[in-house]
Amino acid sequence: MYKYLSTLARNVTPYVPGEQPGNREFIKLNTNENPYPPSPEVIRAIKGAADESLRLYPDPECEELREVIAGYYGLSREEVFVGNGSDELLAFSFQAFFDPGRPILFPDITYTFYQVYSSLFRIDYELVPLNNDLSIPVEGFFRENGGVIFPNPNAPTGRYLETELIAEVLEYNPDVVVIIDEAYIDFGGKSVAGLIKDYPNLLVIQTFSKSRSLAGLRVGFAMGQQGLIEGLNRIKNSINSYTLDRLAIAGAIAAIKDEEYFQETRRKIINTRERVSSELTGLGFEVIPSKTNFIFITHPEHRADKLFSLLREKGILVRYFNQPRITNFLRVSIGSEKEMDHFLERLQEIL
Amino acid sequence: MYKYLSTLARNVTPYVPGEQPGNREFIKLNTNENPYPPSPEVIRAIKGAADESLRLYPDPECEELREVIAGYYGLSREEVFVGNGSDELLAFSFQAFFDPGRPILFPDITYTFYQVYSSLFRIDYELVPLNNDLSIPVEGFFRENGGVIFPNPNAPTGRYLETELIAEVLEYNPDVVVIIDEAYIDFGGKSVAGLIKDYPNLLVIQTFSKSRSLAGLRVGFAMGQQGLIEGLNRIKNSINSYTLDRLAIAGAIAAIKDEEYFQETRRKIINTRERVSSELTGLGFEVIPSKTNFIFITHPEHRADKLFSLLREKGILVRYFNQPRITNFLRVSIGSEKEMDHFLERLQEIL
Repeated sequence: MYKYLSTLARNVTPYVPGEQPGNREFIKLNTNENPYPPSPEVIRAIKGAADESLRLYPDPECEELREVIAGYYGLSREEVFVGNGSDELLAFSFQAFFDPGRPILFPDITYTFYQVYSSLFRIDYELVPLNNDLSIPVEGFFRENGGVIFPNPNAPTGRYLETELIAEVLEYNPDVVVIIDEAYIDFGGKSVAGLIKDYPNLLVIQTFSKSRSLAGLRVGFAMGQQGLIEGLNRIKNSINSYTLDRLAIAGAIAAIKDEEYFQETRRKIINTRERVSSELTGLGFEVIPSKTNFIFITHPEHRADKLFSLLREKGILVRYFNQPRITNFLRVSIGSEKEMDHFLERLQEIL
Repeated sequence: MYKYLSTLARNVTPYVPGEQPGNREFIKLNTNENPYPPSPEVIRAIKGAADESLRLYPDPECEELREVIAGYYGLSREEVFVGNGSDELLAFSFQAFFDPGRPILFPDITYTFYQVYSSLFRIDYELVPLNNDLSIPVEGFFRENGGVIFPNPNAPTGRYLETELIAEVLEYNPDVVVIIDEAYIDFGGKSVAGLIKDYPNLLVIQTFSKSRSLAGLRVGFAMGQQGLIEGLNRIKNSINSYTLDRLAIAGAIAAIKDEEYFQETRRKIINTRERVSSELTGLGFEVIPSKTNFIFITHPEHRADKLFSLLREKGILVRYFNQPRITNFLRVSIGSEKEMDHFLERLQEIL
């Protein structure tokens, strides 16, 4: 079967996304989707963009969308890059900023796609072990390296690092690019986009998939000084001139503009997270403090893999990672109040 | 500025797409867009898909769209792969099937993105010179190589190779992947998808951008035996689990299903092309016989770069490639009847 594949394609170990169930009705708490729909303004904008102009290529520079994002973060358009989901931006970043032979650093427990990109683009890496409480030890990045990348808050732990600690990582690493992956920043953290003016080595990556309820639209963005954005453009323009379609551009612009809706939905998710965390603690779970739209939990008397299977039987999908140090944890996305009630009830039945 | 860029990002020469004009109203005959809108069924399907479900990730396998494309070409779903425009598929293919150190072959005059991919993925290549009449000499591919890729019809020449000649290339190259880029096949050529069952080394790539009037939606597809599709999946799943958004999937499915509309619009474009080709011949142009939605033309007494500039001044954008062998040619997309009348009138004024 593999006769025709390149050495690269044969050797790479692709990422496996969370299960997208087919026919059966599940409560999906496994891929960190937002339980609330996108803003009605987004739907309206997309319907408005669904017209004859689809025969024409989109703006390859996505100038209007970049302008709107830049305005939101107090940056200039030249400091913003957009793409087909934050995963695409991460892939471009590995190619644009990291070189083979100079190991980059990321945590041992983190978004597993970083290892996949390293393998695909032949970038060496060294793992920085999390502390015992699963927090990121910033001093782990105070050593020779070819680049740094980690999510803030981290995934799948949900733990958040204050801006001052990230500034320390940037200070120690002036000659390499430090990528802060803020996929979950809107659920209680504060973006480090404000540090961009002071640190030419900082690239911040965000997504519309979680806090903007647009996982189905595939839009992510990166922010950094112009030189870094130029690097991303060089890679993107060597792969695909038009990565965002007209509908995604229109929808994303509308999403940023509806600030009230955004604040309301993220507030609801934060409130639900705090309530569910406290109830789980009452059930004997250890709940890692989360600033995301998921919680990472473990129970001293119940094996996580068993809980995962029993929940699945009862129609609830959560995420289980069979990897060292976190084999006894489950990652549970924050759904609606009703979905989480259901989850807590099923869990109580199981315990 | 480039201090932080990888060696790769510094050295690559990105592709430059055709100009997308800003404010001024141009007749755009420079990026091979379709002058006719997409099927009304496509618009309807997209509006229907613009709903609350956008909060959820799309199907990462795009099973329904692949099923519909497979049905159209008499293949199985496992023999179809879809992606964010055919450029993304080409980029995946270079990674999935070609290895550094084994030069691949493509024509000296062809889609310039092949050189960009070779540079980005460090794939060596050798150029097969076109014949003097700008046709592809298939015997140029009868030699040791690490893979073969060319468009059929070729771009920017518009010249088409019959299926029998492509079968010869496949026969001679049983141990490497032969990629036939059929971006323009629907304007008078016949797809070689029918050869897939006999040739495990054949990958056929198509796009919705041209003949389906959906450049703004970003959908392409690849067809080949299951082993090749598996190779593309290995690369895609190492970069981005979800390359097609929910709206693009819905629109593309509707486009394939509206066969009547498709036949009608492509017929109109073919008729316009034949009419315009004959009128240009009357004006003294040499017109390379085209099976695409563009024509490649040269005039013995007028320099192409001058014609390009003069047409631009008169509000008409065409494409000029400043590269050896074709410095005196213009590529002109086939617009609507009215647009082409306008083009011919302006051209007569200039001559």
